[in-house]
Amino acid sequence: MRHFFYPSNIAIFGAGAGPKNLAKNIVHNCLSMGFEGNIFPVGKNQGEVFGKKIITDPESLPQGIELAVILVPAGQVAQTLDICGRKGIRSVIISTGGFREFKEKGNQAEAAVIDMAKRHGIRFIGPNCIGVICTESGLCTPFAPFQTKSLKNGHVSVIAQSGGVASQTAYQFSEEHIGFSKIISMGNKLNLNEIDFIKYLMDDDRTGQIHLYLESIDHGRKLIDIARKSEKPIVIFKSNVSRTASQVAQSHTAALANNDQVVNAALKQAGIVRVKSIHEMTVCAKVLELPSLKGNRLVALSLSGGFSVILGDACEKYGFICPELPREFLSEIESFRRGGVIKMSNPMDFGDIHTIAALKFAVEKCLALEYIDGLALCFMYGPEIARMLGEEISHPALLLDFIKKMSVKAGKPIGLSFFAEKKYIEQLKATNIFPVFNDPEESVLALKMLRDYGLHKTEMLHNNVIGMRSEEKKSKIIDQAIKRGQTTLSEYESKQVLANYGIQVTKEKPVENKTGLLETIKEIGYPIVLKGCSPDIAHKTEKDLIHIDIRNEDEAIAAFDKITAGMNGSGNSVLVQEMVRGKREFVAGLTRDPQFGQCVMFGLGGIFTEILNDVVFRVAPLERRDALEMMREIKGSKILDTVRGMASVDLNMLADILVTVGRIGMENKQIKEIDINPLIISGSKPVAADALIVLE
Amino acid sequence: MRHFFYPSNIAIFGAGAGPKNLAKNIVHNCLSMGFEGNIFPVGKNQGEVFGKKIITDPESLPQGIELAVILVPAGQVAQTLDICGRKGIRSVIISTGGFREFKEKGNQAEAAVIDMAKRHGIRFIGPNCIGVICTESGLCTPFAPFQTKSLKNGHVSVIAQSGGVASQTAYQFSEEHIGFSKIISMGNKLNLNEIDFIKYLMDDDRTGQIHLYLESIDHGRKLIDIARKSEKPIVIFKSNVSRTASQVAQSHTAALANNDQVVNAALKQAGIVRVKSIHEMTVCAKVLELPSLKGNRLVALSLSGGFSVILGDACEKYGFICPELPREFLSEIESFRRGGVIKMSNPMDFGDIHTIAALKFAVEKCLALEYIDGLALCFMYGPEIARMLGEEISHPALLLDFIKKMSVKAGKPIGLSFFAEKKYIEQLKATNIFPVFNDPEESVLALKMLRDYGLHKTEMLHNNVIGMRSEEKKSKIIDQAIKRGQTTLSEYESKQVLANYGIQVTKEKPVENKTGLLETIKEIGYPIVLKGCSPDIAHKTEKDLIHIDIRNEDEAIAAFDKITAGMNGSGNSVLVQEMVRGKREFVAGLTRDPQFGQCVMFGLGGIFTEILNDVVFRVAPLERRDALEMMREIKGSKILDTVRGMASVDLNMLADILVTVGRIGMENKQIKEIDINPLIISGSKPVAADALIVLE
Repeated sequence: MRHFFYPSNIAIFGAGAGPKNLAKNIVHNCLSMGFEGNIFPVGKNQGEVFGKKIITDPESLPQGIELAVILVPAGQVAQTLDICGRKGIRSVIISTGGFREFKEKGNQAEAAVIDMAKRHGIRFIGPNCIGVICTESGLCTPFAPFQTKSLKNGHVSVIAQSGGVASQTAYQFSEEHIGFSKIISMGNKLNLNEIDFIKYLMDDDRTGQIHLYLESIDHGRKLIDIARKSEKPIVIFKSNVSRTASQVAQSHTAALANNDQVVNAALKQAGIVRVKSIHEMTVCAKVLELPSLKGNRLVALSLSGGFSVILGDACEKYGFICPELPREFLSEIESFRRGGVIKMSNPMDFGDIHTIAALKFAVEKCLALEYIDGLALCFMYGPEIARMLGEEISHPALLLDFIKKMSVKAGKPIGLSFFAEKKYIEQLKATNIFPVFNDPEESVLALKMLRDYGLHKTEMLHNNVIGMRSEEKKSKIIDQAIKRGQTTLSEYESKQVLANYGIQVTKEKPVENKTGLLETIKEIGYPIVLKGCSPDIAHKTEKDLIHIDIRNEDEAIAAFDKITAGMNGSGNSVLVQEMVRGKREFVAGLTRDPQFGQCVMFGLGGIFTEILNDVVFRVAPLERRDALEMMREIKGSKILDTVRGMASVDLNMLADILVTVGRIGMENKQIKEIDINPLIISGSKPVAADALIVLE
Repeated sequence: MRHFFYPSNIAIFGAGAGPKNLAKNIVHNCLSMGFEGNIFPVGKNQGEVFGKKIITDPESLPQGIELAVILVPAGQVAQTLDICGRKGIRSVIISTGGFREFKEKGNQAEAAVIDMAKRHGIRFIGPNCIGVICTESGLCTPFAPFQTKSLKNGHVSVIAQSGGVASQTAYQFSEEHIGFSKIISMGNKLNLNEIDFIKYLMDDDRTGQIHLYLESIDHGRKLIDIARKSEKPIVIFKSNVSRTASQVAQSHTAALANNDQVVNAALKQAGIVRVKSIHEMTVCAKVLELPSLKGNRLVALSLSGGFSVILGDACEKYGFICPELPREFLSEIESFRRGGVIKMSNPMDFGDIHTIAALKFAVEKCLALEYIDGLALCFMYGPEIARMLGEEISHPALLLDFIKKMSVKAGKPIGLSFFAEKKYIEQLKATNIFPVFNDPEESVLALKMLRDYGLHKTEMLHNNVIGMRSEEKKSKIIDQAIKRGQTTLSEYESKQVLANYGIQVTKEKPVENKTGLLETIKEIGYPIVLKGCSPDIAHKTEKDLIHIDIRNEDEAIAAFDKITAGMNGSGNSVLVQEMVRGKREFVAGLTRDPQFGQCVMFGLGGIFTEILNDVVFRVAPLERRDALEMMREIKGSKILDTVRGMASVDLNMLADILVTVGRIGMENKQIKEIDINPLIISGSKPVAADALIVLE
């Protein structure tokens, strides 16, 4: 893998001296970035590019070339790989586009490339990419002219699916004064993919943070497993989340859309920070340099009342609490006032206090409070203002040093922004002493990222398995159903499976005739529910095969007759069921995600499942904490509390059910889908009132 | 009002020569901005500020001063106002802080100020503000040193509650190359408020757009009325939307928090664009310079596949559609390809096409399509790239001219962004030829603002009354209730009021005894509902005074007995009601907002009203369009469609109900609150199954 970043010598296929030739830009970019190895341009026609003679006979290439970049038409890539193989080159960047993103998957040119690479044991990046930029080695393989002088050296590495995004990220990171080590554009990911690169970067001494731009996640389980083991932060900007985008994503890097709710859950479970734009990647890169944020409680402080209000809104938006501060402490701060003007609170308006001593006092004292986890500080800056405040902070470097010391001393983060002219904010950023965010809201967003990263990460490193932990234990009911050729279990069978795993289901029994009916009713007691029961029957409600709230024998017999008539030969078993009453209905289940495998689903039930799409996911198996988080994540989570005189839901029981549903999925690989809907809250206990298990 | 912006001469009270004096900064700011009138600093001690002699005897001030700025301690403001009055100064900016934002409302200093101003007929801005910046006259009254050379002259005017935000806005607008005419910091709004300034700016020739930063809206109805008449766009950044922020907002500019859902609705009804940050104000200011966006259909086009994907996600996020384009047209574009690489779609990936002719062809052709309303274009820029694409666009000005012409010719907007180094993006912006947004997502957000503004505005100007249109027609039922001393109507009375206005309610009749009960049941028919009925009874469910789904005489009599026993003397009337079945429940009602007055509320009903808070508001009276919009705005709006075999809801009937509820509120000023909950959908028709009217 090292050859992709630190090759001694490189060959560039597809070079030409003409004005429109693209491959020659690669030569230029490497030279201007200070790449010290030999560069061998290879092309059809004689000529020179940037002082390097074009090699027209590839057979004449010397041995010892460690990396090749290929930018020849798609149809010629395979034969170029053949040359590489014969010349001992085992690492190749295929920049050429025109493979699966243009034609259907598995087109001929693509197959030829894969074959040839396999034959020679070649590993390659791409096709359809701009390859690698490495600030240390000076390797810079984009085929568009690159402003290499603008790039900053540092310890963030970036993996991007799109070339345009990769190069824009290089610029934007540098403009925010974030230095990077390596940027990798992966294109179609036909051979090497994000998993390979993450692994490499996890062990790379030069890399401190790993950032990714992805349009698709193809190996979800692997991504989770590896990320959970990473001690370096992993940050992902996952686009292609809309139907609109997926049209172009597919033709662009052959990226299929993922279920975004599953992606969200999986990244959270993996301790990965998800961001929504290139700019947010830079925000996250900055904040990850701060001491970790161990909780949710901030002091918000600004030298302008207006920005204190804006900070306060941002704190609430991002789920922070600004605890009330002790009155004596606030009074001490108030004693620094000029005109006796501003009443102190949290958020804190420092608009009237223009002494650096007061600021120091307030910040240090706040950060020292045991119940305060960090600070959001919106400062102001301008040369005159700095002079006014005091010598100690009269220059950008002094000011940031002053703030850094307080943060380091307390071991707590300060999310710092300024109201000031942009040119001064740029000066402050350029010192690189302490992270400066672009505005108050951004500073709070950054703290949110830091909090969410920290909360999950610590725990995860101690317990980093989410793979195939559970053993497979086939359920007998499922085995029998498979033998009978069923692809779904009947409601009764489905609930038996659940009940065997300890999930509470409705009391019920299938009956074949009226005698059985009346006997069973005696056991269960009115009111009851009668349902047509057969693995072949879906949509029972619409076919009128469910009769609820039956209160006496007449109603029961009438319902039984209607149902057996309506079943129309598809079995004649009728399920007698206790009538569970409860206004609160949920849905819980298991689905198979193409990339992430078994996922547990939970949400509001009844009609609201489809109306509000209020469902959340977790990749199975679940930790107990995952289950508890899921309940808080649904929009309607308040329904779990005491509401309208109803008792609060037994959260432990509900968590058990979600963890168990995941376990059933992991232990029974033949299960494709579990659907418990509704899961009715009876009193405070969840009971599975209907369930369906679909087999593969 | 003109004197606040274009005074001939000004006096500044509170000036001193000492290094910490703040008022002297005002003198400096005006001088450095080129204010041409006389400036008279007034202070206690002799001395000079910036070459102006301090006047220690205010009686010696000449006549003919048109504006005073006061920055003396709060306790001395009233007597300073007295001096102003005697010197004929009728326009004053009170910069001093320390009034109601520090002490309670109506404190002594504040009362004295109001009295004195009234006595002399003085109008004032503030207190607790930084006053006015006017780029044309050079008036610049902030008391902190101001970088006046950084400010750009133009036609956007800004009204801000906070001084810090006002000055930061001045800088940020200028940095985005948006020139402004006037910036007004209002502070506590004790005398002049946003309504006064909006009125002035609507008639001000120099002002083309009116932007506001508000922490509270104190005159909601007036704001709506005036905004609806404005032919200039009004843009509002309303902060103080969280409980966290309201703590500091109140001590900062004495701003009370508004119900943010009502604010949202009201601004929409008024055709005001709501933005969420100072930066978004600049985005909005730029996009309002483009031709209007008449619909929802965009072509998204980028010179990078990755940014096409990002544009696509943004289009869907902001509610745009990217329609499929005719295949022949796409093929024509594809014929410009270099390597036959990229398949065209919408969003469109132009990554492989590097000719300006192709771009021109594509953009012009897309904009000419009847079913396309605008374009989101993410271009790239850099000197080498520009040279590669062609002479016509080889400089920033040429490139933007090229794009502007296409937009103007089609009369449709182009939301333009670049992937490029920031320094080039800044060069492009600085040309001021055509609005350039900072990234692709921002360009789509901008188009969203343009669309939302345009959709409401046109219509509104033709029909700009939302005030007290309806006549008052007291309901007899209400009159009688008031005479009896009731503060609420019983369920039966409430529904009678609704029914008299044509809203369908459950068939029902109050009965006093069992004979009445059985007779009434005969009229209504089983199943029925029985409820305890009295204006004194709230929370009927919890007190077990509601029995539903009663199917026979035995059940009816048992229920009747239980209810009368449970009513415990608070009346003995029992309401016999038809049992309306329907799984879909809504809530509709009327509330009184302290700032906006009567508002109609609509949302998901039953338990979900409180669980999901899925309710929306409109200020009454409602247009039919408002009612239809409300139904689409609730999160659960899908429930209105055909769902689970249920017919779609009769939207016209539902709209009638919402409009009518507003009318009832406008015509009966004694009504404080109407609560129809649940409004059950029976078949497809909404029926009021329970209702409560609260009187003042």
